[in-house]
Amino acid sequence: MTASLGSVSGHLVAIGGAEDRTSDLEILTRVFALAPADNHEVAVIATASGIPDQVLPDYEAAFTRLGASRIHSLDIKDRQQAGHPETVRLIEQSGVVFFTGGDQLRLTHVMGGSATLQAIRERLAAGAVVAGTSAGAAAMPGTMIYNGAAADALRKGAVNMTFGLGLAEGLIIDSHFLERGRFTRLMEVGASNPEHLGVGIGEDAGVIIHPHGIIEAIGSGHVILIDSRDLASSNIAELSMGEPVAIEHMILHALVSGHGFDLGARRYLVPEALEAVLANTL
Amino acid sequence: MTASLGSVSGHLVAIGGAEDRTSDLEILTRVFALAPADNHEVAVIATASGIPDQVLPDYEAAFTRLGASRIHSLDIKDRQQAGHPETVRLIEQSGVVFFTGGDQLRLTHVMGGSATLQAIRERLAAGAVVAGTSAGAAAMPGTMIYNGAAADALRKGAVNMTFGLGLAEGLIIDSHFLERGRFTRLMEVGASNPEHLGVGIGEDAGVIIHPHGIIEAIGSGHVILIDSRDLASSNIAELSMGEPVAIEHMILHALVSGHGFDLGARRYLVPEALEAVLANTL
Repeated sequence: MTASLGSVSGHLVAIGGAEDRTSDLEILTRVFALAPADNHEVAVIATASGIPDQVLPDYEAAFTRLGASRIHSLDIKDRQQAGHPETVRLIEQSGVVFFTGGDQLRLTHVMGGSATLQAIRERLAAGAVVAGTSAGAAAMPGTMIYNGAAADALRKGAVNMTFGLGLAEGLIIDSHFLERGRFTRLMEVGASNPEHLGVGIGEDAGVIIHPHGIIEAIGSGHVILIDSRDLASSNIAELSMGEPVAIEHMILHALVSGHGFDLGARRYLVPEALEAVLANTL
Repeated sequence: MTASLGSVSGHLVAIGGAEDRTSDLEILTRVFALAPADNHEVAVIATASGIPDQVLPDYEAAFTRLGASRIHSLDIKDRQQAGHPETVRLIEQSGVVFFTGGDQLRLTHVMGGSATLQAIRERLAAGAVVAGTSAGAAAMPGTMIYNGAAADALRKGAVNMTFGLGLAEGLIIDSHFLERGRFTRLMEVGASNPEHLGVGIGEDAGVIIHPHGIIEAIGSGHVILIDSRDLASSNIAELSMGEPVAIEHMILHALVSGHGFDLGARRYLVPEALEAVLANTL
């Protein structure tokens, strides 16, 4: 297992979208509980969203209920704001950083290379929790999907990818995964390069990415893993753009709350195994 | 490999729906070419369809273009018609039997145990080709899916199943598979009993089920196989109805035209391997 697998250092939480924000807050409760014991300030970044005025109050209310000491609603709209020292200062004092949903390309376009993103990386390394939902989850790894054919993405070139926020390595994240039938998107990515684990997160579901590359599923929905490491054959390199991709042998898992996966060992962890691994790595 | 795998004897063709009926007829051409050399009569059964008056003329036109000597458009609406000697006689003289799409439960409810279905089985055993699209494909095996949650069917009890037409064994068929994101339906079935191969057929795609359990993908789309035989663990037996099912290890393949699969050996067949196997079994 290499040090770069999973999160860079602290806890990341990737959420598949549509997490409960008004009822029992199951997922957001887990996010908040991962904050450092002495820091309950929360920064919510609505850069991905086209409707920040609707989204930010929801999170303010939810994190207030959970006991946040302060909430910084950051509607960072452009690269100037992403570089502003005051924004950086608010990140530096937060124990929780939360990315809303929306358009992940807007998120990376605004945040990429910014002082705010650098501050978030440093907070993560220092033990803060960084969470994101939908686009905010998809953007977390070093490489992300930002568009793909809805009906059949298992065609050469049907999935558009670019650099993500660089907060996690060794995996690629897709959201609204079961609800929007996105299996073929991660299969296409896996055929193009089988090294990286495909993590497809359903709605009101999420993964905590613990240090040392241990994934824990949370929430009421499913987390689908598509492991292409043992891919036996594919025609992808011989095809013209748009032609259908053949795949021989990928491995499919479905995690529910309490189940986990070891990214380095590529090993499914039933609840008892997950608990043992997490106890050993603390 | 047991004799009961795949088709009972002759050629079955299961199509995922929306196959081309007006342009180059790629899939229907393959269906028609599998008819016995001395019998180019075609029976089209529109029982599943709610709009037989729209569907039947399309197939009449297509099979006429392909060279059918006669076309019997059978709008069998109830069990009385399914038992009528004249209907049976028309099936007995046909070299191609084709089931349209629609509602597979309507198809099995009307045809189950009927003299017409028995005649179709005998025609198949005698070398005729039996093809079906969408509902007409889903209904082919001994057990079929007739309903399942669209968003996340990987919940205990979310997939409704009953007896199918009993024309193929060892597999379960789902249609419109990629377009409607139905992966979780076959995962749920595989968790409930890992023995039977899940065959998810996309639109304008199909499988020829050759004798001896050899599957060949045809058409412009994808055929997804979900092989649960090596399922390592699942919580399904412990859950209450509606709770999310965990799955450790299913195998996923994506076939495109010219690729195949050996049902008995559970072996992916790249085009050269498929050709060799089919040459050996002829």
